[in-house]
Amino acid sequence: ELFVLTYGALVAQLCKEYEKDEDVNACLDRMGYSIGVRLIDDFLAHSAVKKCRSYSETADMIAQVAFKMYLGVTPSVSCNSVTGNEFSLILDKNPLVDFVEELPAERASLCYCNLLCGVIRGALEMVHLAAEVSFLQDRLKGDAVTEIGITFLRKPEDRRHRRNK
Amino acid sequence: ELFVLTYGALVAQLCKEYEKDEDVNACLDRMGYSIGVRLIDDFLAHSAVKKCRSYSETADMIAQVAFKMYLGVTPSVSCNSVTGNEFSLILDKNPLVDFVEELPAERASLCYCNLLCGVIRGALEMVHLAAEVSFLQDRLKGDAVTEIGITFLRKPEDRRHRRNK
Repeated sequence: ELFVLTYGALVAQLCKEYEKDEDVNACLDRMGYSIGVRLIDDFLAHSAVKKCRSYSETADMIAQVAFKMYLGVTPSVSCNSVTGNEFSLILDKNPLVDFVEELPAERASLCYCNLLCGVIRGALEMVHLAAEVSFLQDRLKGDAVTEIGITFLRKPEDRRHRRNK
Repeated sequence: ELFVLTYGALVAQLCKEYEKDEDVNACLDRMGYSIGVRLIDDFLAHSAVKKCRSYSETADMIAQVAFKMYLGVTPSVSCNSVTGNEFSLILDKNPLVDFVEELPAERASLCYCNLLCGVIRGALEMVHLAAEVSFLQDRLKGDAVTEIGITFLRKPEDRRHRRNK
């Protein structure tokens, strides 16, 4: 809860600093990215996970090991595309918003938890997986669940192939 | 570690915003205060502690139950005054600075963890204990240990007495 409240103080501070929700969202995403880039070492050291062999395994790992370890919750995972590179993490309960009743009207576009997207993006990049990560649904905005979308951008094989050309 | 890194991002953000270390310290203390005021409910709900009968018991409770619960460490406690209202929490290890090597030269007066002082002050106030809380030593500044000083300002009995006059 100390973490949850400290996170709230961070978001409040950014809202004071930036007038536009988009700027707050972008800043949270950037901060999250820097955190993810460093957090991945801690994750690999403490989780003892093996190398993932597919995007699907990677998404499961994020949901079942990483979210559990750092936030104490386990989102469910669904695959959203036939190409198998788009996934959703669906949270019934988001501990980061425990103390947030609802977003104020003038902050309707704020992605309160956008830091998480940056963290995931940064951490994935450190294991050579480029991804786009964003909130698709948010209970704070009246949606039934909170849904984080992860789109893996390119297979490592493709990249290696290109580099060898 | 996600908390530790997020806290680091908060401090970095405040350093961007405020030129003077004193202003950053004051802001962290204020934020901590607001957090402590809310965190106390969570603490009382989850710790099942009984009412403390002395300042000494209160200081032990902060060190052995609250620090353990929220930061995973247990500072040692020492009493610093014959009047029995000044205590030190001494931390050999401060998890909040796990990723901080040392303070940059231009931030020599920064109390990096000042949020904690505010949290303690805010939480104590909610149980009707006025206190001054500040860092007396800080390993980030080259001291051998990190030491948080708590000075209880007035006994609740005194206050009640005065109010009844």
